[in-house]
Amino acid sequence: MNGRMQPAEIEKRSFAIITKELGARTFPAGVEEVVKRVIHTSADFDYADNLCFSPAAVKKGKAALTAGATVVTDTNMALAGINKGMLAGLGGRAVCLMADEAVAREAKARGVTRATVSMEHAARMEGPLVFAIGNAPTALIRLHELIEEGAVSPALVIGVPVGFVNVVESKERFIGGDTPYIIARGRKGGSNVAAAIVNALLYQLVEREGF
Amino acid sequence: MNGRMQPAEIEKRSFAIITKELGARTFPAGVEEVVKRVIHTSADFDYADNLCFSPAAVKKGKAALTAGATVVTDTNMALAGINKGMLAGLGGRAVCLMADEAVAREAKARGVTRATVSMEHAARMEGPLVFAIGNAPTALIRLHELIEEGAVSPALVIGVPVGFVNVVESKERFIGGDTPYIIARGRKGGSNVAAAIVNALLYQLVEREGF
Repeated sequence: MNGRMQPAEIEKRSFAIITKELGARTFPAGVEEVVKRVIHTSADFDYADNLCFSPAAVKKGKAALTAGATVVTDTNMALAGINKGMLAGLGGRAVCLMADEAVAREAKARGVTRATVSMEHAARMEGPLVFAIGNAPTALIRLHELIEEGAVSPALVIGVPVGFVNVVESKERFIGGDTPYIIARGRKGGSNVAAAIVNALLYQLVEREGF
Repeated sequence: MNGRMQPAEIEKRSFAIITKELGARTFPAGVEEVVKRVIHTSADFDYADNLCFSPAAVKKGKAALTAGATVVTDTNMALAGINKGMLAGLGGRAVCLMADEAVAREAKARGVTRATVSMEHAARMEGPLVFAIGNAPTALIRLHELIEEGAVSPALVIGVPVGFVNVVESKERFIGGDTPYIIARGRKGGSNVAAAIVNALLYQLVEREGF
């Protein structure tokens, strides 16, 4: 144990351990980096099985990020975890409307969750939108409705809310659909997982592909 | 699935499911709420086995919080996840020094991690200190050294870094020691888990015990 080991070195060794423990399992390029980073952030190898990717989801997500996408989160925790410097370097930004006063007021007046209203407001934003939902199934449910209504066409939906009520069903709505998605099937997920997936895309672009 | 179900109702039903699935397992009062909230935030029942509590750790942590403790985190994600309104209502606050410029400068000059330096700076703060470490094993290692040197005497150490390098060892240093602790043994943990444990103590105080 060495207190002088730097985070970059720790991370490199961590990924080597993850690779070794995944053994003979293989993933498509791009997908592999996402799966490993989620395992890195959770120490939970279940994500090697849970994570589902629509065709070319990683490619489409990265294309949106290089086009200056807005990443919409449903918690300030996910917002805090996203590498916003790297995102800004690509011309993008990350937002969370959960603490927005107008959202809170409207949610109260209508008797719906703030997560629901925050998705409606986010859907009106300009430019490519990447949704990173790590907490609220009601956000994911409302987002799916908005897509079906034609009100929004996300470049990518990262659907990884965690929990026991409505969560599994909210995620299943996207599986096999036309909207590009990265979904953690089942109960698991979280704001940390949502941020890790966004960062896995950013790191591929900035550290490997030279954007 | 009901988009109008409010978060408080979802949470209540979630805890009922967690209680049911824990089956015959029992935990001491106070501990039970912490274990269940961590499972609620991760959907990972491993925490029913991983979490280790020193004698009266929950009681001591709550006593510190009612005395206006400063909660020191090692990530802005954990900071974002803590219920800061409730903490402020008890006269406390939460801080993360990882993005502090003086910390960054000193870490670079000395060739150590920012996590290490942030613990040294936090150790000098006044009043009861609760450390909530969800990410950096080097933070936990340096904190243990500072305790051994007599430089700090935390009211509670929440030691739940996640990962594959140095993490298990950093947590084991505290097990059986004199400093009150809540430790997630093994590789698992995270900023979300650290925040959930702090919140579990706050909710006990504010919602149940009327502080």
